[in-house]
Amino acid sequence: MSWEDTATMMQKHREETYAAVEPAIPEPPKELPLNVTGVPKQLLSENVISITESPPQTLIESLASGKLTSTDVIKAFLQRAGLAGKLVNCITELLPQRAMERAKYLDEYLAENKKPIGPLHGVPISVKEHVGMKGLDLNAGFVSWVGRVAPDDATLLKLLWKAGCIFYARTTEPQALMHLETSNNIYGVTVNPYNTKLTSGGSSGGEGALLGLKGSCMGIGTDIGGSIRSPAANNGLYGLRPTAFRLPTAGWSATMMGAEHIIPVIGPLSTSLEGVKVFMKSVIDQQPWLYEPSLVQLPWKDSSKETLLRKGYDGRRKLCVGVLADDGVVKPHPPILRGINTLIEKMKSNPDIEVVEFPPYKHDEAWRIISPLYFADGAAEEKAAIEASGEPFRPLTNFIIKETKAKELTIPELWQLTKDREDYKAEYSQHWNSVNTTLPGPDSEELVSIEAVDARDKMVDVVLTPTGPGCAPPLECAKYWGYTSQWNLLDYPCMIFPTGLYAGEEDKVEEGYTPRNERDNYNYELYKPETFIDAPISLQLVGRRWEDEKVIEALEFMMEAAKMESS
Amino acid sequence: MSWEDTATMMQKHREETYAAVEPAIPEPPKELPLNVTGVPKQLLSENVISITESPPQTLIESLASGKLTSTDVIKAFLQRAGLAGKLVNCITELLPQRAMERAKYLDEYLAENKKPIGPLHGVPISVKEHVGMKGLDLNAGFVSWVGRVAPDDATLLKLLWKAGCIFYARTTEPQALMHLETSNNIYGVTVNPYNTKLTSGGSSGGEGALLGLKGSCMGIGTDIGGSIRSPAANNGLYGLRPTAFRLPTAGWSATMMGAEHIIPVIGPLSTSLEGVKVFMKSVIDQQPWLYEPSLVQLPWKDSSKETLLRKGYDGRRKLCVGVLADDGVVKPHPPILRGINTLIEKMKSNPDIEVVEFPPYKHDEAWRIISPLYFADGAAEEKAAIEASGEPFRPLTNFIIKETKAKELTIPELWQLTKDREDYKAEYSQHWNSVNTTLPGPDSEELVSIEAVDARDKMVDVVLTPTGPGCAPPLECAKYWGYTSQWNLLDYPCMIFPTGLYAGEEDKVEEGYTPRNERDNYNYELYKPETFIDAPISLQLVGRRWEDEKVIEALEFMMEAAKMESS
Repeated sequence: MSWEDTATMMQKHREETYAAVEPAIPEPPKELPLNVTGVPKQLLSENVISITESPPQTLIESLASGKLTSTDVIKAFLQRAGLAGKLVNCITELLPQRAMERAKYLDEYLAENKKPIGPLHGVPISVKEHVGMKGLDLNAGFVSWVGRVAPDDATLLKLLWKAGCIFYARTTEPQALMHLETSNNIYGVTVNPYNTKLTSGGSSGGEGALLGLKGSCMGIGTDIGGSIRSPAANNGLYGLRPTAFRLPTAGWSATMMGAEHIIPVIGPLSTSLEGVKVFMKSVIDQQPWLYEPSLVQLPWKDSSKETLLRKGYDGRRKLCVGVLADDGVVKPHPPILRGINTLIEKMKSNPDIEVVEFPPYKHDEAWRIISPLYFADGAAEEKAAIEASGEPFRPLTNFIIKETKAKELTIPELWQLTKDREDYKAEYSQHWNSVNTTLPGPDSEELVSIEAVDARDKMVDVVLTPTGPGCAPPLECAKYWGYTSQWNLLDYPCMIFPTGLYAGEEDKVEEGYTPRNERDNYNYELYKPETFIDAPISLQLVGRRWEDEKVIEALEFMMEAAKMESS
Repeated sequence: MSWEDTATMMQKHREETYAAVEPAIPEPPKELPLNVTGVPKQLLSENVISITESPPQTLIESLASGKLTSTDVIKAFLQRAGLAGKLVNCITELLPQRAMERAKYLDEYLAENKKPIGPLHGVPISVKEHVGMKGLDLNAGFVSWVGRVAPDDATLLKLLWKAGCIFYARTTEPQALMHLETSNNIYGVTVNPYNTKLTSGGSSGGEGALLGLKGSCMGIGTDIGGSIRSPAANNGLYGLRPTAFRLPTAGWSATMMGAEHIIPVIGPLSTSLEGVKVFMKSVIDQQPWLYEPSLVQLPWKDSSKETLLRKGYDGRRKLCVGVLADDGVVKPHPPILRGINTLIEKMKSNPDIEVVEFPPYKHDEAWRIISPLYFADGAAEEKAAIEASGEPFRPLTNFIIKETKAKELTIPELWQLTKDREDYKAEYSQHWNSVNTTLPGPDSEELVSIEAVDARDKMVDVVLTPTGPGCAPPLECAKYWGYTSQWNLLDYPCMIFPTGLYAGEEDKVEEGYTPRNERDNYNYELYKPETFIDAPISLQLVGRRWEDEKVIEALEFMMEAAKMESS
């Protein structure tokens, strides 16, 4: 079969799954505005709108109390997900039969036991395609992998299932899983619902676009360079790149499965911060380290039980937010800087939040280290998987292989880069210790100052920074990974959140700016206010390694202080 | 300078440090028994004997209360360590000047502040040579590396120093740090104080022999295949191979610094279990993850505050001990099996301890995976470091390079082995889940059974197993790593402890045994009761990954039940 025929076959299968949804998925009008986020409201019933626009925590309550049945909820999400698929091409297949059966089971369970089956009883969860589901295709975006069938559910899915959820939709991802956009030769291009000339981001861009249209309230993405965060940011969502080794990854499919130089992670996207929290807690409470021994035995710290923020002398919570607005390599576009400044301004009046500058520390050096580690075999596995079907290389596949100078490393070269990586991580840690304290920074001769514990009270708790050098870029322009890959190298937990602001005509070009380098110039040239109209302005909150819960608690605190809503 | 001249120079320096100790280190008699552990008592003063034979917890109390001064204590240990060096060749240099200055400072601190400086106030700690000390040689056992000077103290040393300890002795290690014995071309061979025809073990064999002679009560070793545990076992000591990423390693020196396929660890040896505990707690309480970002943010769980063992319906602690007496590859010698059986017998009457069989799971497959990962560059770095000075390869260096079939791997080969490693770890975890429960084992198709959490109450807590296929072997015979390297591959915490028994004439050869394979045959042929006279019989207690504290608490509980002393 030619690669084109394989793609046609898969698209046809997708159409069949759409057709099996009841009530039928409405057909979108031929003429659509650039911003399609308002379309579902015009085409779906009030009841479907009301269910699908509820934040996950509200759904959880309604489902647990029986106010809503699992069947009602899943029907609404199937319909809206199908519509989203037709609008922005974010779906690989819907699972109406499995989902409806599961919902029926859950409704019966609740009726019989008078209590929910678990903390996610009836909650619909969408899943990026390369996370395996028993008996379903597992192609990871390669045409030649179509026909590979998952022998079992991924471990994460088993745990979410035990917690009570319903899987109902699988979502698109890019060729080779290594774009900050989403396009492959099986399903084509996924676009941004806020502005369909822009990308939904990637590689979890199917999730991003689907949640952006509220065809899902909770989804699963994966991230080795920004792949949860870019889609979360581009579509105005919450998304967590957890510290590695906190969530189980067994059962996903990708190239380079034995590579551990840069650890890929799996994590949630949601329409609310509460959704991210309940996802993490539901999984980690099940002690996933019993199944996947690479995971760390770190229970989930529940901020409702124990505050992770410092307490001041008066017993009030205290938070020190470092601001890293510009990584010193590529200057962010005006909307992003407006987003940061607006948030700082809103928090300023809160006496329990201290905002300090957090200077970048050699972010260009981080890219020098991480880029050859991405494809340590010279991208041989990706090339083989692409060439096996004769499908063409997507432009961003070519770009990233070239950008990372992919070549097969020798063991001594690999070890040298690994040493560089560890040295850089130690220096960054020292840098973090030194900001806002009197401890020596990484340029000091004394690399380890054992006074750090005593200085903890002054240290920065979290760092506020962009998710990329702009809002969602136009298609095939997402070329600078630094704002996200930086934290993959360091393995710091990162939370993406929407500011509630959108790019607009007011975000003027900075006239007379002299770009620092090629990449900065590319980014500068890319910016025109009219290109980015309506793109959500999202930001990233970064914590130290293992402090996932603290990042979430800090964000809750900041949103409270800034009087922002978190759903 | 020829390599021989370099060695002579280093030995001369060592003699000078011996000569600087006051009061003078006594000269041992020319004629010595095979077992030299009784010699110190004949040559040292009663006061020195009393101090050096106190367990660390007693010393800590006496030092903190001022009952003993730091100066008294360090003088006693310097003298006894020097004597140990002369008896079994376990020292690379003593540090009388630094140590006496430090002791003086601590004594003044206590006098002035009326309280100890930290939890290890005045405690002498000996250190394996390749753990860097500012301004001192850092040769890691290679002649060509003599003259390399540590630019700073290793992070672990900084933290122990802040806790109040005194560094006073540096100890021997083998060429390339990759023997389960201790011999190099700088200082020669370190032997076992219980029987000087046997090895002290390795690679932390200088520590083992020094603590075995009570020339130290707490020391620092390192372990990638058994290097803390073999010396601890061979010399009747307590020794912990912690889970990786719990203690900081920055500042040590070795080949293959960028290799992360099998993680080397650092950890304590002590004359008491309490010593191991206080060492771990004193370091981890200082939040070492602030300095070394590879470390996991896991606070030390204090068993005096929270029991980690299960509670039965009656509120009593419960423990399930799995017994893995024979790994199915190489059968242990009769003294080891006697040790295990004696301990089981002694614990049997305790109703709160359940003893079950823990079958080995493919331990030969573990060696197939780990051995090529040890020298993934084909041992190129080791060969270069040895050849640079012209020193000869020690026999066990040749042996291990051959045994592991060292060759430079390609990236695809490395990834395949890494995948095999992770698969094996997941299977072993499933195996552990299944022993003594009704959960499916690793041979089942269902690799992840999410019912494990519900079965935790029945699961094995710790595994009791040998540390090697026999007690300390004769020199140049320590060739089977399986009983220790198994747990390096899995990264499980392991605690070595003495049974209080010693090998003797009563441990008869098992007549008519048919060895299973070459290695089993080698080990079987090696055994004659008269060869091993007086060798301590030690055992290993293994826990699941991250459960270091639980292993210690379980051992305390078992020793209590068996009415054994833990110091």
